[in-house]
Amino acid sequence: MAEAVEIREVGPRDGLQREAPIEAGRRLGLIGQLVEAGLRQIEVAAFVSERAVPAMAGAAEIVAGLPAGTGCTWWALVPNLVGAQRATDAGIEHVTVTVSASEEYSRRNVSMSVGESVEQATAIAAVVPHADVVISCAFGSPYEGDIAVDDVATLAHRFSDAGASVTLADTTGMASPRRIRDVLSATGTAVGLHLHDTRGTALVNAYAALELGVVRFDSSVGGLGGSPFAADAGGNLATEDFVHLLDEIGRDSGVDLERLIDVDVTLRELLGRPLPGRVAETELNRRPSPGPLP
Amino acid sequence: MAEAVEIREVGPRDGLQREAPIEAGRRLGLIGQLVEAGLRQIEVAAFVSERAVPAMAGAAEIVAGLPAGTGCTWWALVPNLVGAQRATDAGIEHVTVTVSASEEYSRRNVSMSVGESVEQATAIAAVVPHADVVISCAFGSPYEGDIAVDDVATLAHRFSDAGASVTLADTTGMASPRRIRDVLSATGTAVGLHLHDTRGTALVNAYAALELGVVRFDSSVGGLGGSPFAADAGGNLATEDFVHLLDEIGRDSGVDLERLIDVDVTLRELLGRPLPGRVAETELNRRPSPGPLP
Repeated sequence: MAEAVEIREVGPRDGLQREAPIEAGRRLGLIGQLVEAGLRQIEVAAFVSERAVPAMAGAAEIVAGLPAGTGCTWWALVPNLVGAQRATDAGIEHVTVTVSASEEYSRRNVSMSVGESVEQATAIAAVVPHADVVISCAFGSPYEGDIAVDDVATLAHRFSDAGASVTLADTTGMASPRRIRDVLSATGTAVGLHLHDTRGTALVNAYAALELGVVRFDSSVGGLGGSPFAADAGGNLATEDFVHLLDEIGRDSGVDLERLIDVDVTLRELLGRPLPGRVAETELNRRPSPGPLP
Repeated sequence: MAEAVEIREVGPRDGLQREAPIEAGRRLGLIGQLVEAGLRQIEVAAFVSERAVPAMAGAAEIVAGLPAGTGCTWWALVPNLVGAQRATDAGIEHVTVTVSASEEYSRRNVSMSVGESVEQATAIAAVVPHADVVISCAFGSPYEGDIAVDDVATLAHRFSDAGASVTLADTTGMASPRRIRDVLSATGTAVGLHLHDTRGTALVNAYAALELGVVRFDSSVGGLGGSPFAADAGGNLATEDFVHLLDEIGRDSGVDLERLIDVDVTLRELLGRPLPGRVAETELNRRPSPGPLP
């Protein structure tokens, strides 16, 4: 039997970070629904500047309000040591920290060189119980184009050697099954993938990675998301679309698609518009009485 | 080197059939642009009832106005013997004719049983120079759900034995890489695929089929299309998205992606709205001065 697939739901963080702010209580409601749908790893907050990313305000309040006894792993994004301290003070044990494989993206996104960013991520990994280092632009950069596979592999090995887990991010949707294969052949397949759907390729890239043996994926309910600092970021791989694919190809994710589509409905109501994910739209149109939907 | 991939562009037929009618001259302009983009097989018209499908009116005018000396194969859909006669009278040598693998879809779509439809397709194939039999609902039916793989294979073999080519259609986007593999293992891979994106799976299904050795695909510029008689048909595999994937994985289609995106722009102007295809949207946003787009 093929190995189960581990989904880290990033909707409450990556999915909402460039939306109009939604109050913490409602975001907690969304997280509760995601847990009910069977998700067991959820990125719930970002301990970033509330001025720079207003949608992520109230991170400590979110963490304090998380349901107990669910067996879930709660992740929070931290941008620096101060954020890491705030996150651990709030009770977070699993943090994601981003290092870019692109010098130019690094400079624009976090005003640091890749080298400076690596040092900071290393320092963060040393002070938190568990760090997942997300290597952005791992499959290409909107600025430099191709990113050398060896540079990505060097970064990945450096952090896995240091005891962190590693996730490779296709920040602006430049990956393809071939680039996925090329990069994974250098990094190994014990990485997570964080895919964006800028060019409609998130699902095919996820499938190609599954075929190669990757079992950890980030996705966002409704296909929401994208960096607030990258113009053509595009939404994340939609969790519903990914779970639908996994169900169809007989891979277990532990997620109930119908309940997940209910979360999509909540999110549509919160945001007042349809979402980019495709399966929810189609399945909602097939439900007997979906009622009015935005 | 991997085999070249043959794309049959179905935008002027499947893509436009449920849109508000566009005059034949403008449709010919679109076909000319598709030829310039490198497409060499184009479904240009449907010889159907103009009352039932007003968008397909003027089929003979379209065929009469096709550019000469392009080396293109021009396809037309015909629903019955009368249509086949009209098509051949107009000068068409390659016709597509649909037979459903689903009894219920067959009854609703063409008011015939599958058996009656098979007889008709056989009669049509006997009187036209070349027929491609498109087996609809080959990967599932919105009415019966699963369709027996053996039934699809029996239909496919019957028509290929009779000298027709065969295309398997995922009419309402129910295919998955696993269903593709199951059906192709029974039919062989010398078939064309006609994929719809109802659940966002057209591209991943195309990729899975490419990996299995299929080299003939239908697609529609902009991802337009879908049966006017199936509520959840969803658009076709978008030609731009497919060509982008092929370029990325090093498979030759002979199509110039930039010129194809120009066709997408024309189509947006004709229809007054953005189209479902993903690559054109992203690439147009990256062009230096795309100008106002709907």
